[in-house]
Formats: sequence, C-alpha cells, structure tokens
Amino acid sequence: MTYRAPVSDYQFILDQIVDFSAVLDSAAFDEVDADTVTAILEEAGKLASDVIAPLDRGGDLAPAKLVDGVVKTSPGFAEALGQVAEGGWVGMLAQPENGGMGLPLTVATAVNEMMSGACLSLSLQPLMTQGQIEALEHHASDGIKELYIPKLISGEWTGTMNLTEPGAGSDVGALRTRAERNGDGTYAISGQKIFITWGDNDFSDNVCHLVLARLPDGVPGTKGISLFMVPKFLPDAEGNPGQRNSLKVVSLEHKLGIHGSPTCVMEYDGATGWLVGEEHEGMKCMFTMMNNARLGVGVQGVGVAEAATQKALAYAEDRVQGKSPLGRDGAGIIDHADVRRMLAHMRADTFTARAIALACGVALDLGRTDPEQQARGAFLIPIAKAFSTDIGHEVAQLGVQVHGGMGYIEETGAAQYARDARITSIYEGTNGIQAMDLVGRKLMDGGEAGFAILDEIETFAEAARATLPNRAKAVWNAAETLREGMEAMLALSMNDRFAGAVPFLRAFARVLGGYYHLKAAISEGGEGPRSRLAAFYINRMLPEHTALLAQARLGAGDIYALSPEDLSA
Amino acid sequence: MTYRAPVSDYQFILDQIVDFSAVLDSAAFDEVDADTVTAILEEAGKLASDVIAPLDRGGDLAPAKLVDGVVKTSPGFAEALGQVAEGGWVGMLAQPENGGMGLPLTVATAVNEMMSGACLSLSLQPLMTQGQIEALEHHASDGIKELYIPKLISGEWTGTMNLTEPGAGSDVGALRTRAERNGDGTYAISGQKIFITWGDNDFSDNVCHLVLARLPDGVPGTKGISLFMVPKFLPDAEGNPGQRNSLKVVSLEHKLGIHGSPTCVMEYDGATGWLVGEEHEGMKCMFTMMNNARLGVGVQGVGVAEAATQKALAYAEDRVQGKSPLGRDGAGIIDHADVRRMLAHMRADTFTARAIALACGVALDLGRTDPEQQARGAFLIPIAKAFSTDIGHEVAQLGVQVHGGMGYIEETGAAQYARDARITSIYEGTNGIQAMDLVGRKLMDGGEAGFAILDEIETFAEAARATLPNRAKAVWNAAETLREGMEAMLALSMNDRFAGAVPFLRAFARVLGGYYHLKAAISEGGEGPRSRLAAFYINRMLPEHTALLAQARLGAGDIYALSPEDLSA
Repeated sequence: MTYRAPVSDYQFILDQIVDFSAVLDSAAFDEVDADTVTAILEEAGKLASDVIAPLDRGGDLAPAKLVDGVVKTSPGFAEALGQVAEGGWVGMLAQPENGGMGLPLTVATAVNEMMSGACLSLSLQPLMTQGQIEALEHHASDGIKELYIPKLISGEWTGTMNLTEPGAGSDVGALRTRAERNGDGTYAISGQKIFITWGDNDFSDNVCHLVLARLPDGVPGTKGISLFMVPKFLPDAEGNPGQRNSLKVVSLEHKLGIHGSPTCVMEYDGATGWLVGEEHEGMKCMFTMMNNARLGVGVQGVGVAEAATQKALAYAEDRVQGKSPLGRDGAGIIDHADVRRMLAHMRADTFTARAIALACGVALDLGRTDPEQQARGAFLIPIAKAFSTDIGHEVAQLGVQVHGGMGYIEETGAAQYARDARITSIYEGTNGIQAMDLVGRKLMDGGEAGFAILDEIETFAEAARATLPNRAKAVWNAAETLREGMEAMLALSMNDRFAGAVPFLRAFARVLGGYYHLKAAISEGGEGPRSRLAAFYINRMLPEHTALLAQARLGAGDIYALSPEDLSA
Repeated sequence: MTYRAPVSDYQFILDQIVDFSAVLDSAAFDEVDADTVTAILEEAGKLASDVIAPLDRGGDLAPAKLVDGVVKTSPGFAEALGQVAEGGWVGMLAQPENGGMGLPLTVATAVNEMMSGACLSLSLQPLMTQGQIEALEHHASDGIKELYIPKLISGEWTGTMNLTEPGAGSDVGALRTRAERNGDGTYAISGQKIFITWGDNDFSDNVCHLVLARLPDGVPGTKGISLFMVPKFLPDAEGNPGQRNSLKVVSLEHKLGIHGSPTCVMEYDGATGWLVGEEHEGMKCMFTMMNNARLGVGVQGVGVAEAATQKALAYAEDRVQGKSPLGRDGAGIIDHADVRRMLAHMRADTFTARAIALACGVALDLGRTDPEQQARGAFLIPIAKAFSTDIGHEVAQLGVQVHGGMGYIEETGAAQYARDARITSIYEGTNGIQAMDLVGRKLMDGGEAGFAILDEIETFAEAARATLPNRAKAVWNAAETLREGMEAMLALSMNDRFAGAVPFLRAFARVLGGYYHLKAAISEGGEGPRSRLAAFYINRMLPEHTALLAQARLGAGDIYALSPEDLSA
C-alpha cells in the first residue's frame, strides 16, 4: 500500500476544531468558500495519493545525483512536479493579481501536509518556490515581481533559499558571502552556501536563488545583510533565460534521508544579482518568509507521521504472530495490547500535531486583519514547527518498532519515514532554536498571546464538563498547570528560560493536544471513535506535561553547574 | 576523533555502585582478583579504542557483500576479529577447562560494551560466537564440545544462531524448518531462516550454525522444537573442515544500519546436523543462552550511547555559533544552555544504562550460587535489554541534534550511531516483548525480586539523607511510587499488565537510575562532578517515572476500546 491523503481529517479539523469559518468570513478571502475548499482538498489529495506517493520509495533508492555539474533528479520527479505546477499548487498562496490562487494559509498548510506525506523529498521543491514567491511579493521591485513570479508559479522556473554557510548555521549573522555594487544597479555575489535544498535540477528552465550576502558597508552581524535574486541563467531582454551566471553546484550532500531532494553546496563567483528589499535589510525579508516556511516544515512532520501510521496499521493488521488476545481468528499483531498502544499513540499524536498546525494557519490568516490573531499565530509557529517535527520522527520510529525486524529492512519503507523525518527537527531553525524563540521573543508581550490560548482552553473545558466531566477536568487542570508554568518562566532571566525552553514548548503542545482531542470528542457528543482516541490521549499522553513543566522552571543552574570537563569524564 | 573506551567509568561502577566485590569473593571466581579485572578492562579498552573503533565508519561505507555465494566482509574486519580472538575475548566467558578465560559476566559485559561502542557491526560476530559457546557448554555432548569449543574460542571457526523465519519472529513456536533423523545419529535439516547475523564470512575456516527445527514427531508450538549444530563444512575424522554441507546464504538484507554486519537469509536443504541437548528441548537450550544474549544486546545500547556522547561533546566544544552566554571567548555551542542540557542528558542516561547493565551482570554472577541473586538477575535482564537499547537510540538521536545540520550528513558519523543503535530495540526480542517478560514471567514470584530491589533503594536513600537530603528524598519517594505501581500491576490481569508493560519497565529503570546516580553522588561525599550529574538526573529525568507509572496502571481497556477501524479513520 502507499499513502492516502487524509482529506476527511482536514475537513473535520477545519469544521470542528479550528475556527476556519472565521477565515472564510474574513474580507481577505472573499473569493474562497467552503465548497471550494472541500474541492481543493480533494483535488490535492488525489494528486498526492495517486501521482506523488508512488515516487517516494524510488526517490530514496535513486537519489538525486550531480552529473557534469547538473543535478539529475530521481525517477518521475520531473513529471510529477510538472503536474504540481499545472494544478496551481506552487502558486496556491500567491496573490491572484500575480497569477496565484490566493488561498488561505490554512488550506495551503493542509495541502503542504499531503505533499510531504506523499513524498517529502519531492514536496520540498514547490515549498521552496512558494517561500520565494512570498518573499518577492513582499519585498521585490515591480520589475522583479513581474519577471519572476509568473514563471515560478508555472513551474518553468524554480526557487531556492540561500542562508547557511559552513561557519554560519544557527548564527546567520556570521555569514561571509560578499556582495559588491556593479554600478549598473546589479550586484556581484561571491561566496559559498551550504545545505541548499533543491539548489539545482534537470527540468526547470531556470533556478532562481535568493541569496543572503553582505555589502562592503554592511555592519557585522544580522543587520549588515542584504538579500539578492541570483538566477542560474540571466534573463535576456524578453525575460527568457540567457547567459549562464557565475554560480555552480559544487557537490551534493550524502544525507541520512530525503535522498530525492538534492542538497547542494553552491558556489557564487561574482555572480550577478539583483537586490530584493532594501540594502542591509535582508534578514527582515527572510523573516517574512520564515514564518510560513516554519509552518510548512511543521506539517512535513505531520505528513510523515500520517504516512508512517498508515503503513504501520496496514502491517499490524496483516502480520499474524501468536494468538489474538481478543480471540479473533487470524487477527494480526494489532490485537496485542502493546502494539495497539503504539498505533493509538501514533494516531493520537498525528492528530494533535495536525490540529496545532491548522490552528496556527487559521491564526495567521485571521492575523492579516486582526493583531490579536497575528500574535497568536506568531506564538504558535515555533510550537507548530518544533512539536510537529519531533512528533513526525517519534511516530515514524514507533512505526519501525511496530514492524519489528522488518522495520529495520530498508525495502519495507518504515525506516525511510524515520530517516526522512529526522531533518525536519533540524532545518529552518533547529527545534532548540524554535523553543528559544517561544520563551524569548514570543513571551515579550508578557505572555499575553499564550495566556489568551489558555483562557480559551479553560472556557471550553468548563463547558465540556457537562458532557465529559473527567476528561474536561483533566484538560482544565493541565491548562492551569501550564499557566503557572508560564508565569514561572516569565519570572526567569532569559538564559534560565532558554534552559527550559524545549520542555516548555513540548508541555504547551501537550496541553493544546488535550484541548483539541477534547473538542473532537465533544463534537461527536462524547461517544465515538474520536472520543475514544481523546480518552487515550488524555489518560496516557497529556500527563507528560507535568514533568516537562517542572523541568522547564528549573532554570540553567544545574545545567551550567556541569562543566564541559564534568561531561567528558 | 574516534571512540575511547570509558574504562575508568566501568571501574568506578564496579567499585562504588554495584556489589562487584561480592563477585570477586565468591567461590565461582576463585581465579579472578581485582587487579586482574583492572588489567583486563584496560587491555580490552586498548583493543576497542585503537584497533576496532577506527573501522566503524568503513564498515558503514563498505557493507558486507555477497559475492559468488560467500560473504565478503568490510575492510579490516578480518584482521581486527583475529586480534579479538587472539586476545581471548571470544572465550572470555567460557570455562577454563574448555580453554576459556572463565571471567565473571560482569566483566564480560563491560568488555562487550566497549566492543559495541567501538564498532557495533564488528562486535556482533564475537558476541554470536560467545552465545554459541555458552549453549554448547550447557547442552552439547562431550564430543561436540571437544570438537567445536576450542575452535570457536580461537576464532578459527565462528558461530551463529538460527531462530527466525519469515512467519516466525516473536512467535518462535510457529517455525517450519524440518529435521529428519538420518538413522546414523545425524539429522537432515531443511528450511529457510532469516535475520541470521554474521551468517557467513570470508575469514573463518568454518561457520557453525545452531539451528532450531522441528522433528516429524515434534508437537506444534515451542515444545516440539529441537536444536541442531549445522556447520558450513562437515568436520572430517581429524576434526578439520571437510565436505561442504547443504546450506547456503541466499541473500543479505539491506538494512537501516549495522552495514558491516552481514544479515543473512540462510537456506538449509537436507543439511547434516547434530542434536544439541535433548530432542524437543531446543527452546530450553536457547533460553539458557538468551539471558546472556539479552544483556549483551543491552550493552550494545550503552556502547553506542557512549560513542555518540563522546562525539557530540567534541563537536559542541569545537563548534562556535554566536557568543557564549557564559562570556567565554571562542567557546563552542556547549555554552548554550539547551545544548549543554542535551549533553548532560546524554551523559546521565549513558551512566544509568551502564549501571543497570553491570548491576544485572553482578546479580547473574552471584546467582550461580545464590537463588535470590539469580532471581534479581532474571528480573533485571529485560530492563537491562530494553531500557539500555532505547537509551542507546535516544542518546544517539540527541547526538544528531547537537550536531545540527551536520548531524544529518552521513560523513559526520552521528547519524550512523542512530541507525546502528536502532536495531538493538528490535532484535533478541523486541523491547515490547522484554517488557511483557518483565510484567509477566518476572512478576510470577509476586514481585519478590522487584520489591527486594526497592527495599535496597529505600534503605540506601534513608542513609543518604544525612548527606544529600533533597536528592535522597526524591529517590526514596520515587521508589515508593514505584512500589505502589508494582502492587497495582500485580493486581491486574495479564493482558492488562501487558498494556502497561512498556511504561512500567521504563519507570523501573528511571528509579534505578535515581538510585545509581545517588550512590555515585554519595561516593564522592555529595560534592563533585558525579554529584552534579546526579542533581541533573534527579531533578530533570527521574520525575518521568510518575506519568509512566500512572499509565502503566491503566490496563488495556482504553486501548482495546479503539478498534482497528477507529485507528484507520
């Protein structure tokens, strides 16, 4: 079996868990109605399930390769990516006046999840281009917009993001790539960039690199960085790819997973570039884009979790070992309590992570006109990124375990999900960085956005007591414990907060999960499959928040008490 | 840098944490004294660090291959394995009258950990042979013992274990391999076996397969299974390898990790075999061996955890990103609170897992003459296997995270530890099976062995209050919570226990970790690096036991309430 897009689950979450109707009602999305969204999800689901998912294994077995300086992509990727572009999915977030679909981010988030679940390696290509279009829409000159955006949307050209350098990873401000003014309005870009996702391919007419570099008068650190559009082929007078630019792919990385996604080392040797945004304001431009990109990475975790869960379920139903403890003749290992526990855990956390991501999408959509929702979206982004990607990997590893010895054999495909998902906790800001963002920048409002979420949870839980008293009480108590934990975090110095950032973020997500599972149960009157899954989650997984919050509040003292020498002993 | 065997940590644990002096004092180990053990650990440490560790990366890059029916092993493995045998390490557990070193299992456990940490793939070869020697010592006829054991110890011949078949994994009793009596005292073995570790090689003169098969009059299930010695070459009258036996390697598996270890599909086509033990008692023979084998796998997790921790520490000290929050000029990312937290977690759990494994070794050594210790050893085995291997993988994954983007690049080597460690939670009985063994068979004594451990912890914690009141209290309370949890488990039906088996096992290990860390702290008077690590563990990691035990007590109700259809939704 291969992955089937869980379209009905998105629909359920949009209808019952997150306030998506408010998005449809908002002025920003006049052209979009509920029926259109349903049709869109179904259409994207077909593409993901029928066209993209069958390529996933092949991309792992036949990775992208560098041949004579050009990246040769995995079998079938070019054709499938052609269909992605033809379907309008590359431009689904772009403004209609630029030729895009102008969809809400919430819907795009569901679509991105499907693409990632079907084939993470392949899905990164349109995701990168999506991000580039967004950056150009916000910051590029009209000339650049008119020239690049239509071709990026049509798939004729593709886009990349060039931030990282060997000495500048989490610390982007340490970058050394140089930009010189050519005097004709263009710039000459020189330096090496690493970890460039889909830095080249063998099917698009051009590859458009957005590159961070420092001008001679750029101050050290992040404030002296500018952003440039540096295409592989310089557009000629008609806007067609002309002369080859002075840039090349030096090598491809040999990675743990996402083998079908070419991760390039790029070298720029006086390559011609055009400024995007103002000089020295490159980081601001990047940040615009990084919000959506982080949500996009978050749902990569959800997508892989979904795919891994489907695969493990199918295996556990088919694989017979010993007698069923439930006395079902010929039943698979799914009847063994420990196996079913693992599968329920996988299903419960896939739902949690998905609901968080879509809630984040809704807040960002509403945030276009509502500052309170904007703050909520900003608060949820690091959670959606870090929790969902951690869950993607954890669920995939449980999937390996469900498969037993077969899980360790690559042909089975369970291990590929774990290998592929592993990068998502690292790139687009490691999950440690995300957690520091949450307890640092995202608590600068004194916790207002976070407390507003807790108020909402407690209000809902109080109302839910009439239907599901025990579950509602557990969720209410968890929200209250989280409130105390957040107050305690706010009283700490920044570095003490950082020491507890990772457990705090996970605790917040655990409590959100309690809320969304409770909502799901209440939506079916407290009886039915979602209520049973909610009971499992609230009984078994929600309690994790207590120890996490106790840890989050400890500060950095006992950590720094351990010197590097202590740890090396 | 490559792995350095942590010899001083074994010595510390033997001297201060586990009751190894009792092993030295026992009649069973008259020939072994403390100085000899120290010399042995140092000697093994040199072999592991200097000879074996440098081969680890090469084994991953140049996996074992099947060429013309023979397994070609990874570069340097043959020579290094020659040195392992020359050093006497294959025979370290064998009785002196059979040419072995007759070492305590505790010491062998430390040595096995070093070998695994240095190169897991390579270490599996002598480990398999160790297990075979043990099975032969206990169950084989004198003729087989005299012929095989000396050659296995010398490394001239190597050994394998053949249990698993495509339809018989966790359910060994389902096996279909047949044995027919040839009428001359030998048997004809026919069938297919899978997942045979080191099923062949290109350096030993013979490969000796211990094969489980069913005689025509063997009843279905585990009670109708017999054990046979089936060598690749039939020994001639002088005991030298003669005629080729009718068995072959059909293929090698393509695995997530341990690429240097050839995992074979074996086919037996009327191959000549000799009975080991009595007819139909093959499972009993296997069980003798599986206890030690499980401890051997447990320390594979510890070894990889140690190696991953060393690598991550070195990287975090060297890698500079941003300013040190401690104001140390040019300090690496180890100064960031979240990174140091991860490293401390890795170090703390590596110690926990190692102490549990060595405590298990001591109990099994003392158990040769003391039934109470034997029961303790049996109780600790599934914990030592499952917890330590889970930790091996978790620590290796944290190591990847510490490396950031570089962790995802295979050349770095951090990902290899995670890939290699992943099998250890699966083979030799999945960790789910281990947990079921703990709450099932190992609680058949009404929990006596487990409660005795808790008594010991509480007694120690009470005495420790004078020195470290808060830490001692936390450990005492944890032991008491575990006692209540265990009592609750005992009151459950077997399948309800199975539903909580995995969280119960982990909770037990967490509390053991609290005990061993507290002991370490007290051994230095409550001040020093081990006390600081104990504080970190007791503050941050020990509290996990509460939620785990709450979960363990829930029974299977909410799990089985979720039907397969519920989970597929």
